[in-house]
Amino acid sequence: MDTLAVTGGEVLRPDHSIDPADVLIDTVTGTIDAVVEPGEVDADRELDASGGLVVPGLVNAHTHVAMTLFRGSADDKQLDDWLQEDIWPVEAELQAGDVRAGAALGIAEMIRSGTTAFADMYFFMPEVAAVVEEAGVRARLGHGAITVGKDDEAAHEDFRAGLEFAREYDGTADGRVRTMFTPHSLTTVDESFYREYVPKAREDDIPIHFHANETENEVDPLVEEYDQRPLEYADDLGLLAENSFLAHGVHVDDREIELLAERETAVIHNPASNMKLASGMAPVQKLLDAGVPVGLGTDGAASNNDLDMFDEMRDAAMIGKLAAGDARAVDAPAAVEMATAGSAAAVGFDSGRIEAGANADLAVIDLDKPHLTPRHDLLSHLVYAVKGSDVRHTVCDGTVLMADRELQTLDLEEVIDDARERAEALFDRAQA
Amino acid sequence: MDTLAVTGGEVLRPDHSIDPADVLIDTVTGTIDAVVEPGEVDADRELDASGGLVVPGLVNAHTHVAMTLFRGSADDKQLDDWLQEDIWPVEAELQAGDVRAGAALGIAEMIRSGTTAFADMYFFMPEVAAVVEEAGVRARLGHGAITVGKDDEAAHEDFRAGLEFAREYDGTADGRVRTMFTPHSLTTVDESFYREYVPKAREDDIPIHFHANETENEVDPLVEEYDQRPLEYADDLGLLAENSFLAHGVHVDDREIELLAERETAVIHNPASNMKLASGMAPVQKLLDAGVPVGLGTDGAASNNDLDMFDEMRDAAMIGKLAAGDARAVDAPAAVEMATAGSAAAVGFDSGRIEAGANADLAVIDLDKPHLTPRHDLLSHLVYAVKGSDVRHTVCDGTVLMADRELQTLDLEEVIDDARERAEALFDRAQA
Repeated sequence: MDTLAVTGGEVLRPDHSIDPADVLIDTVTGTIDAVVEPGEVDADRELDASGGLVVPGLVNAHTHVAMTLFRGSADDKQLDDWLQEDIWPVEAELQAGDVRAGAALGIAEMIRSGTTAFADMYFFMPEVAAVVEEAGVRARLGHGAITVGKDDEAAHEDFRAGLEFAREYDGTADGRVRTMFTPHSLTTVDESFYREYVPKAREDDIPIHFHANETENEVDPLVEEYDQRPLEYADDLGLLAENSFLAHGVHVDDREIELLAERETAVIHNPASNMKLASGMAPVQKLLDAGVPVGLGTDGAASNNDLDMFDEMRDAAMIGKLAAGDARAVDAPAAVEMATAGSAAAVGFDSGRIEAGANADLAVIDLDKPHLTPRHDLLSHLVYAVKGSDVRHTVCDGTVLMADRELQTLDLEEVIDDARERAEALFDRAQA
Repeated sequence: MDTLAVTGGEVLRPDHSIDPADVLIDTVTGTIDAVVEPGEVDADRELDASGGLVVPGLVNAHTHVAMTLFRGSADDKQLDDWLQEDIWPVEAELQAGDVRAGAALGIAEMIRSGTTAFADMYFFMPEVAAVVEEAGVRARLGHGAITVGKDDEAAHEDFRAGLEFAREYDGTADGRVRTMFTPHSLTTVDESFYREYVPKAREDDIPIHFHANETENEVDPLVEEYDQRPLEYADDLGLLAENSFLAHGVHVDDREIELLAERETAVIHNPASNMKLASGMAPVQKLLDAGVPVGLGTDGAASNNDLDMFDEMRDAAMIGKLAAGDARAVDAPAAVEMATAGSAAAVGFDSGRIEAGANADLAVIDLDKPHLTPRHDLLSHLVYAVKGSDVRHTVCDGTVLMADRELQTLDLEEVIDDARERAEALFDRAQA
């Protein structure tokens, strides 16, 4: 056994208690071997966490990571206009190299802000898998399949490609890449395709992830056509299951909440995106109270505009209170749970908790900052005061991905330069 | 003339255009002498802004800066419970040294996140003035006067102290300290005190700043008692004027909005605090459309939980869209305007714009970050992607307060240690 010890810090435990402890990691299996009293470990290597807070690596449970290339390209627009006028025309010009560059940029950003795992639905997914492998993070990846705007043959090709990617890439990158089947949304995929492909995914036990109930425009047409709420329709299609999860769930009624709880289907909350696109406020406290599993995601950088899960925790707590009309709603422990164990469970990773046996995915936060002073309550700080830039080290699968703010697996300068060049050429093509 | 040139950066102009330029500062007057083509300045000293974005120093137009000592001490509670159970009992134990330590902590935090000026309503204000002088920032300070919970004599003493502070300290710290008269709120100050003291403040041309319409609980009792909306009552008391400004304005109706526009009284929007305390969503786009002057503030760190105006700009844009149900509302230019020129005008400083003649209050942002890549739109980045930690230099009144992230006027370690000790002793006293 080769070991790494994270020493000298205070450790956030699964029960949200925080106490001084050292974390012993088995770097061969990439799991936590033990969490022990300070000063008791004898490891091959040490990572200094003194004066810091050791937390589970955050899990970004819904993003489109390569959309970092779109960051700031189209803000302050309504969702439909934004997609049709700004996003889709540029996406039509995407090349594999763009996705690779955008994914590298997004993953660099996530590592720097303490995120060790993410769920991604996009295009050219083998490129994303390659960057995940190189960067050392963990990801659940799916090829986003859509029928809107495609002829029948092209749509079938797209869906077959989605299943093929899921089968071929699952378990690659030493098991850090897992896959999923990702039909885009309830309104952008024709019913017949759900009827044909969902059973195929279920046959192979492939998790399904999709967008649902993000805006009222995604609810009303389905109610009109099927005389069912969207998630009743989704259930009828076989989309709701324990190994599956949906993004957004902003406009859900009580019957749909009950259905999600019954099926144990997780909702991934994307508060920043929901605010920025004026989609609405997800009833997160209601979901939690009903026993619906809830995870947290940034959505793509085009509607956020960053991939910083600390922002997202704060946003979740803030908007959760507004949605409930109650300052007690979505409290700090709930927000932390959502971004760690909640997201990890939704995505299907044994991460999001610092405990023997779990994946050794963690971040060390430097507490020696004016905005983290005084220290009445470190859990509160995690949600309401810590910034992504306070993360000192990031570890995933037992490997140090960032040490003292220096990336260890990616060349940051190269990543930034490459993304700039790629974005410029991509937008030039789209405008040509 | 002694000069400092900020060179090599791109400069955000008052019309929101951004172009490469150098900023020449007259350090004797503390004002901007000229904004010129790159490479043309000949100055006594230079501050390197290459690869950076030069923006006006942000103006935090409503805070209680010493409340940094309360950060994280009581979260996820309703406003009334929070005040009565958590805040007021501790505030009863406050000593001058606590306010000095808390103010130093908050000012350090603000300088580090590009804020150069603030408006502060609290207690022991000579202590705050002393730290403002030492730290080199700019502030409009007022002694928060209140009648609730006080006997008549104590209340009069409090109000007289408020006027005396405003008269005595105005123009100190080489003019960087300006003052105001700050009756706490429409519901925590007895009408007779407004009738007596507002004319005295007006006589001496002292600006007035107060809390109003923050929660529904602050609206309903006034409507009941006076059969007037709160801001009609405020107008009747002589509180609405061009040199005066109110904090929050969450629950305002159309008549009140009209009144604010007529009186040219600024509303200071505090989105983070309004979300965290579930107070509601201020109709910011409606205020702007009606021509009401709008500034931006963090409120105290106990309800935020930081003093980072970049967070606040993002929050303002986000919640502004939700409140309007329109993703086009409170766009990036509006949010930037609010945090710079809008706040500066409300507070009464000739800051918030980079232009010859204005105060030399500015911040330089390091753009060479993954989360600020690519660069489709730097104004969008300012609101949706820049973090306080991206600020490289901060300049106020022509003096460099932070250079390459190093504070120049405060000893950060000492500030943090002092705040920790003070907070511990304060809370020990309160719990005794």
